[in-house]
Amino acid sequence: MSNEHNSSLTLETNIFEYFEAAKDRFLPGISADAVILGYDGQHIKVLLLKAQDVDIWMLPGGFIEKEYDIDIAVHRIVKARTGLEELYFQQFKLFGRSDRNAHKQEHLKKFQELSSAAHDWINQRFITVGYFALVHIEDVAPKPDLFTNICEWVALDQLPPLILDHQEIIDTALTYLRRQLNYLPVGINLLPERFTMSQFQNLYEEILKQKLDRGNFQRKMLKLDILIRHEKLKKGGAHKAPYLYEFDSDKYHEKVRNGIGFI
Amino acid sequence: MSNEHNSSLTLETNIFEYFEAAKDRFLPGISADAVILGYDGQHIKVLLLKAQDVDIWMLPGGFIEKEYDIDIAVHRIVKARTGLEELYFQQFKLFGRSDRNAHKQEHLKKFQELSSAAHDWINQRFITVGYFALVHIEDVAPKPDLFTNICEWVALDQLPPLILDHQEIIDTALTYLRRQLNYLPVGINLLPERFTMSQFQNLYEEILKQKLDRGNFQRKMLKLDILIRHEKLKKGGAHKAPYLYEFDSDKYHEKVRNGIGFI
Repeated sequence: MSNEHNSSLTLETNIFEYFEAAKDRFLPGISADAVILGYDGQHIKVLLLKAQDVDIWMLPGGFIEKEYDIDIAVHRIVKARTGLEELYFQQFKLFGRSDRNAHKQEHLKKFQELSSAAHDWINQRFITVGYFALVHIEDVAPKPDLFTNICEWVALDQLPPLILDHQEIIDTALTYLRRQLNYLPVGINLLPERFTMSQFQNLYEEILKQKLDRGNFQRKMLKLDILIRHEKLKKGGAHKAPYLYEFDSDKYHEKVRNGIGFI
Repeated sequence: MSNEHNSSLTLETNIFEYFEAAKDRFLPGISADAVILGYDGQHIKVLLLKAQDVDIWMLPGGFIEKEYDIDIAVHRIVKARTGLEELYFQQFKLFGRSDRNAHKQEHLKKFQELSSAAHDWINQRFITVGYFALVHIEDVAPKPDLFTNICEWVALDQLPPLILDHQEIIDTALTYLRRQLNYLPVGINLLPERFTMSQFQNLYEEILKQKLDRGNFQRKMLKLDILIRHEKLKKGGAHKAPYLYEFDSDKYHEKVRNGIGFI
């Protein structure tokens, strides 16, 4: 699923103005990048952008407006770049290597006519703060922004080469997700509203990159008392259909706050 | 335990020079603060500094030198401010509220004679990245720097009011420590080289703020195969003395990498 962006006529003017105004509008030397994760029922996917004209892929990211808390600025960046809003976000790391953007950025080279002040601003040392978001893939329609012409979900094992340290940012997000799994509302933000126990288990196996014992998983999940089981529909063969479950939202979030403790 | 700093004669000149040079030397708008934690055998303590002349307490922190990775800059800041080096550090959060240093900093008010450029630099919006360190209290002798006259260990339940959002930074560090306990080399960095099982259990109880079952704790720890048990000394009454243990460093760090899984 991808969406082509059609406003190329005014694109360069707008980007030009964007960088010329950056010094006054944004905090110096800090950006934010978002690892937006979804689950398509089989695999974890990440939302990537492709730069205009050149084959350069990146995470949705941007700069921090001076008047906003960073947490809020990240929501605004992601909405502007992908159209997505009201996501569950979690900060996971500040990336602070001194050489992380030491190389000139290829996809910005065409803006030769920028003032030297704007050039200096873009090419100063940047640190970036990583956030991840968890999204119901089926509920959203990501769309690219002025800088990009593709915005699409890519499976983790099919990622293209990424700009700067964006691969490291994704890897770090996934490690954080694994280690904090007991304290993150992963199931409720990635599974569809109703799901089978085996979908639930598959999601955890995808995140943890390991097979889990079916009986153990089901026993632990049921014991947590966070699931509502729905009656099977009385259709032909329904006796063989698996049960559908739904999270009891209050109980679920209460457990997550204190550590869900099932892995 | 505290150490008084005696170089007050040249102090103001040096701090003056420090702030005048800050714009050229440091990244703009970003600082780092360190939550340095030690364990005295009974309680977790945190290393605090008190500002010169005024009763203002703070974490050891500072600015990021332009040429250094942030991880390295943090080591340099902590060494300069407390004398401590070669510590185990872990970044845990970037604090990015837009108003976190909106109030003029009381302990800097005496530097009225600073240039307006230096004043602007100090009073710009600052975000700060939090790191914690784990230290063997008995091995180190912290000492204050130019800005401060006391540098001492304070128990977590006896903290004075702290500057800016430093209380929140400490609380966040402790939450991170609890949630990531399985993946952090806490025991080996906080306990003395040889320790009893009950000291080990008490450390975990202090961090988790809850009592643990003695039998369970001992069984799990022994099963991990990370401990070397030392023979009891053959002295009078030694048959009643508890065993002393030591970590098998290689096995310990291998377990921590993969998640120690005992809580």
